[in-house]
Amino acid sequence: MMITDEAFPVEPWQVRETELRLELLPQTESLFALSNGHIGMRGNLDEGEPHGLPGTYLNGFYEVRPLPYAEAGYGYPEDGQSVVDVTNGKLIRLLVEDEPFDIRYGELLSHERTLDMRAGTLLRTADWCSPAGKRIRMNSTRLVSLAQRGLAAIEYEVEAVDDVRITVQSELIANEDQPAPSDDPRVAAVLVNPLEPVRYEVSDCGAALIHRTRGTELMVAAAMDHVVEAPGRVEVSGDAGEDWARTTVVCGLKAGERLRIVKFVGYGWSSLRSRPALGDQVAAAIASARYTGWQGLLDAQREYLDDFWDCADVEVDGDPDCQQAVRFGLFHVMQASARAEQRAIPGKGLTGTGYDGHSFWDTEGYVLPVLTYTAPRAAADALRWRASTLDMARDRAAELDLKGASFPWRTIHGEECSAYWPAGTAAFHVNAAIAMAFERYRVVTGDESLEQECGLAVLVETARMWRSLGHHDRHGAWRIDGVTGPDEYTAIVRDNVFTNLMAAANLRVAADACTRHPDAAAELGVDTEETAAWRDAADAVHIPFDEELGVHPQCQGFTTLREWDFTENTRYPLLLHEPYVRLYPAQVIKQADLVLAMQWRSHEFSPEQKARNVDYYERRMTRDSSLSACTQAVMCAEVGHLELAHDYTYEAALIDLRDLHRNTADGLHLASLAGSWTALVGGFGGLRDDEGVLALDPHLPSGINRLRFRLRWRDFRVTVEVDHAEVTYSLRDGPHGSLTIRHAGKPLEIRTQSPTKVALQPVVPLLAPPQQPPGREPMRRHAVPSRPQG
Amino acid sequence: MMITDEAFPVEPWQVRETELRLELLPQTESLFALSNGHIGMRGNLDEGEPHGLPGTYLNGFYEVRPLPYAEAGYGYPEDGQSVVDVTNGKLIRLLVEDEPFDIRYGELLSHERTLDMRAGTLLRTADWCSPAGKRIRMNSTRLVSLAQRGLAAIEYEVEAVDDVRITVQSELIANEDQPAPSDDPRVAAVLVNPLEPVRYEVSDCGAALIHRTRGTELMVAAAMDHVVEAPGRVEVSGDAGEDWARTTVVCGLKAGERLRIVKFVGYGWSSLRSRPALGDQVAAAIASARYTGWQGLLDAQREYLDDFWDCADVEVDGDPDCQQAVRFGLFHVMQASARAEQRAIPGKGLTGTGYDGHSFWDTEGYVLPVLTYTAPRAAADALRWRASTLDMARDRAAELDLKGASFPWRTIHGEECSAYWPAGTAAFHVNAAIAMAFERYRVVTGDESLEQECGLAVLVETARMWRSLGHHDRHGAWRIDGVTGPDEYTAIVRDNVFTNLMAAANLRVAADACTRHPDAAAELGVDTEETAAWRDAADAVHIPFDEELGVHPQCQGFTTLREWDFTENTRYPLLLHEPYVRLYPAQVIKQADLVLAMQWRSHEFSPEQKARNVDYYERRMTRDSSLSACTQAVMCAEVGHLELAHDYTYEAALIDLRDLHRNTADGLHLASLAGSWTALVGGFGGLRDDEGVLALDPHLPSGINRLRFRLRWRDFRVTVEVDHAEVTYSLRDGPHGSLTIRHAGKPLEIRTQSPTKVALQPVVPLLAPPQQPPGREPMRRHAVPSRPQG
Repeated sequence: MMITDEAFPVEPWQVRETELRLELLPQTESLFALSNGHIGMRGNLDEGEPHGLPGTYLNGFYEVRPLPYAEAGYGYPEDGQSVVDVTNGKLIRLLVEDEPFDIRYGELLSHERTLDMRAGTLLRTADWCSPAGKRIRMNSTRLVSLAQRGLAAIEYEVEAVDDVRITVQSELIANEDQPAPSDDPRVAAVLVNPLEPVRYEVSDCGAALIHRTRGTELMVAAAMDHVVEAPGRVEVSGDAGEDWARTTVVCGLKAGERLRIVKFVGYGWSSLRSRPALGDQVAAAIASARYTGWQGLLDAQREYLDDFWDCADVEVDGDPDCQQAVRFGLFHVMQASARAEQRAIPGKGLTGTGYDGHSFWDTEGYVLPVLTYTAPRAAADALRWRASTLDMARDRAAELDLKGASFPWRTIHGEECSAYWPAGTAAFHVNAAIAMAFERYRVVTGDESLEQECGLAVLVETARMWRSLGHHDRHGAWRIDGVTGPDEYTAIVRDNVFTNLMAAANLRVAADACTRHPDAAAELGVDTEETAAWRDAADAVHIPFDEELGVHPQCQGFTTLREWDFTENTRYPLLLHEPYVRLYPAQVIKQADLVLAMQWRSHEFSPEQKARNVDYYERRMTRDSSLSACTQAVMCAEVGHLELAHDYTYEAALIDLRDLHRNTADGLHLASLAGSWTALVGGFGGLRDDEGVLALDPHLPSGINRLRFRLRWRDFRVTVEVDHAEVTYSLRDGPHGSLTIRHAGKPLEIRTQSPTKVALQPVVPLLAPPQQPPGREPMRRHAVPSRPQG
Repeated sequence: MMITDEAFPVEPWQVRETELRLELLPQTESLFALSNGHIGMRGNLDEGEPHGLPGTYLNGFYEVRPLPYAEAGYGYPEDGQSVVDVTNGKLIRLLVEDEPFDIRYGELLSHERTLDMRAGTLLRTADWCSPAGKRIRMNSTRLVSLAQRGLAAIEYEVEAVDDVRITVQSELIANEDQPAPSDDPRVAAVLVNPLEPVRYEVSDCGAALIHRTRGTELMVAAAMDHVVEAPGRVEVSGDAGEDWARTTVVCGLKAGERLRIVKFVGYGWSSLRSRPALGDQVAAAIASARYTGWQGLLDAQREYLDDFWDCADVEVDGDPDCQQAVRFGLFHVMQASARAEQRAIPGKGLTGTGYDGHSFWDTEGYVLPVLTYTAPRAAADALRWRASTLDMARDRAAELDLKGASFPWRTIHGEECSAYWPAGTAAFHVNAAIAMAFERYRVVTGDESLEQECGLAVLVETARMWRSLGHHDRHGAWRIDGVTGPDEYTAIVRDNVFTNLMAAANLRVAADACTRHPDAAAELGVDTEETAAWRDAADAVHIPFDEELGVHPQCQGFTTLREWDFTENTRYPLLLHEPYVRLYPAQVIKQADLVLAMQWRSHEFSPEQKARNVDYYERRMTRDSSLSACTQAVMCAEVGHLELAHDYTYEAALIDLRDLHRNTADGLHLASLAGSWTALVGGFGGLRDDEGVLALDPHLPSGINRLRFRLRWRDFRVTVEVDHAEVTYSLRDGPHGSLTIRHAGKPLEIRTQSPTKVALQPVVPLLAPPQQPPGREPMRRHAVPSRPQG
């Protein structure tokens, strides 16, 4: 179901649904999800029903379940990890006289929901006439506090149009019924009633519930408290059971009168702390919230966001869809990471249960590049989380008979949870993405302390892993065999170019880091023989090249594999219609792989190689992964296919706002949302950093008049403003007042005193724009009806 | 637990256990299993307890269970198939006074079990003193009739040493308790109580039970009847319930008196026939058995076996271990196939539940070569079974987006049941093994009718599969990518030499068969363009060769993969201690692959290539598969490493008699047992047939003085007798009185009139005998204490 109608106007700073689309409820619950990276709340209706998927999540709070194998193998993970839908604190049921407010009954005169990306709130208004003919207006404003990590709050107002008696039941509910999973019922079976009741308490105006998971033995506490304002007599009472707590507010309203309730919800969880300690923690969150007050929370929310946008905003003049979408993407990236604080950033943030709530290489590969330039503290926290799992990665490497550390393909807590090793364990490239994310953080922020604190150990242990995974063949070439690159349609291959280049970079970066931190390196047992062995392997890395075709094969031999028969087999995504045994040995690609190598290791390819490679792989890439469009945008822009790049930018940016992959209901695609920034900044801005220098080379497609974006680099803030003729670089802050960047391949000094204007370097494509596989031409922007800008 | 002590004397025609070894009960139950290919009975003690694994199997009788996947994929089989332990008809419990005869109680004065390979019986004698001090002698003779397919029978005698009252309970028991499986309890869970009771009946001297499986809805009937002989008053009574039936015989015996009971057990099963029809069928089996009588059954059994041994026996002078073992192997191969009659020959025959009772390429690749030369009617029946599953193989090919037919890697009924596709679906070579088994049958027997009847369609459809799986690369080479050859430690590879050679042979043989049967081929839609395309692909097949090393890489690039670190990682089998992700991209091999190609496609390799390839792969082969030793024996013999070949022959032959793979308890390794014949006849006899000619080239190792074996070829029977100097070829039967064979590479005419003696062609090894991986040197024959020959 595509979200493309006039009920969703395109507006620059908000996502608004002007009337309730029940059939899109599962998707809008994801789009309207609120999170601070610690608490995540899907955009479920206040009254709980109807719903697509009820969801309240706490980062790192999960349950284990056995992973079943019909044919087991050594080293297969035994336990899966699944995010738990914790106690739902956003529930507020309303009864008008005795009639429950349920938008499926009575008459809904109007209904609007708005995600406000500057306020950090979800607003909802409804004008409803009950089946008995009593009319009310309600509005609610929901926030998950960016300032107070363990807190969410809702302002809930009811205005009487007729004289009515109003009952509001504000609730905490644990173990909500979940919809039956669409695929394999065995997989999710264990997560029916995952929470074991520990204790419940009722206070004057609120309540608290404490539960525990059975397998992981994690304890979660949820508490609520209320501020009630009503014109006349109002009665507030409380009640609770093992899995529920309720505060009931009853009052009479005359026409025009209002009942206003502010609900504070505090959450806490721990694997260690005692029940009383956890109870106190959520009580403190509530107390602190009462002290701050609703308006204080709103103000803090906006202040946090003002600061964020100041360094993160991208302005896209001429393309309102992309304008809205890139801000939507940045907003959700911010939400997923703001207060994650040494917990993972899952592939879907905290917006749904897709992929069991796991984190992938998406974090370091797609999300952290954006955060490093826009919210480096959040990037550092995410890297600290990864480093905190190093011991588990060491254990995994030992299990795999490898040296060093091997980080998991998918996990919540740190252990490998991938049950299909050819696309899990074999995808060792996740280790390089992690290592290079530390390096990018260091280069971009200039902050060496994170490397000292925890990055060095990660660099060293991943380098050791690569060195023991690869080998020198008898001709002296250093090769990595039997691995899977980013493209999951070609797995367990020799010498995947992406992997080999990233591994070599990982080895070099680790060696350099050891030189910077000799004492710490020595403590890790690194000597100069070891770093020399890393550099030697990196220098000898085998990068296959097909001289006949003038392109890089994605892996050894790729260009002589069978061509995919696109005249017949074009039901996408192919993985749902074709077996791996046929996909793997064919020249058909799920997602950017060699093309991604050309973005991340840009300087290792000549311009002609880039042009020819883009041309070759564009024709064979199905974009069946959400990790592809943003990379295709960047590389198409670099080789001069600017309109095609614009199309891909659109796809990356609108993946969820248009539900392009038909699974936004399970949660948002954070990597692609982050990728909308990368498509614009890396593609049309030409940002590269793989040589340790801030390099830019902007070019705009015809459909964008002006692009303006901000970056942090070391202690500076840089603003880049591009039109079709020239680019203006402005520099704020910084210690010296000047910074040497690279513009279109040449050094350029920019200064804080005044902006620097330079002409764009024209890009002349070597080849004509390529065709894509049939049915996989990018979604053209004009294919979507244009809407007035809000 | 190795079976190497003096309780198991080495005797040429029997396997005898001279005292009960309780700790070896699971293994001896497999060794002493009786079968006719339709019914299989493990060698459980008559009284049922103690046991390792109770087992009674009917070929083709199975249950389905869902195959669980933590991460599912398109084309993964959804249902597994498992052999069912059906109604146990071999149970005879004995009570001496009121004391149950249980060898764990009282005093076992003597106990002996003997598998008689000429009589086709399992004999057991025991001399037992009950805890109360009453002594009896019992003996039982068990047979599964080779003459009457649905029948088993037991003669059970008790002789009183003291005056005693004897009670015998002869039983049928359904849904026996199974021991907990060692690995994953989820996998076997559904097979608790697999049989749903349908009906039970009690007759004068017997009873019948009818059950049905829930998933497959197969009905099974088991009936028993008894002939009772006792000196004095004897009372016989019957009783039954849903899952049990009992005939009770009570009598008093004075010292020296005997009770004799003959128990007839009839079995039948069907997916179609009604309950009454099935009941009648087993009643008829019983009636027929009563008519034949016990002695008649014994006589028919011996007659069948005399005929079998006349054409199958191999005499190995000077090596009593191999002598016993090759007969043991042939006996079990005979048992597994004799009356299978268009059902599969499972990898473990009907001797245990290992591999769920599935059939693999073992059948066509390892068992049928032996049967084709020794019991061609059984080979034809096995091929008919395979052909009967062609429609399922067509469906599977269509599911995999392939033309033609793709036979399953593992199955009971015909559907693919392999849940791990890299070592299942990707092992397409099973199709070539099937096709080439039809061709071998045609060439060896001269019988063209089977090809006409069903073989042609198999050849055509497998050829179509190969043609659509492979492709021509841009240089015109025909390549097969993403497949797994026989070696399961290197999977999903390019251009596996074994697979490519076998596929090419499959294509050529199919084209030739179409030329022989033009009308039938036309009916299958084959035209000359299609056969030309098959031949073209076969001619253009890419066979990688490493010019530098002078060896064939097992697959493209194999010889530049990482060498396995045998200084550290030598816990065998490696698959239990190392992940696939590390095994696959290393030069470590589970089993003969390229080496098998050199046996099966012998003429495609030069003698020097064979010598160098054997040398290269011997050093990297772990023999972690039971399918390897026999092939290593054959190829080591060919290149002149005769002592090494002898060692491997020993391993292949004694795999179960010595429990070399530590899993004989789960059932016998039929392919390796058949392989003991192949090691002797193909290795030391030098038998090859891949050029359509009977080719021999004998050479004996020092430890064998004389080797004598028989073969069927067309209408002839050929006896080959070899010593260290010369070989004598004798010809029996046949229409023309003469046959041109190939001896040591040159044509030789042999005649029925008189044997032909020729000198052996000396074999001079090109290279010194190779080393094996540490810890994988073959088990030396002298490492086992020698025993007196029985």
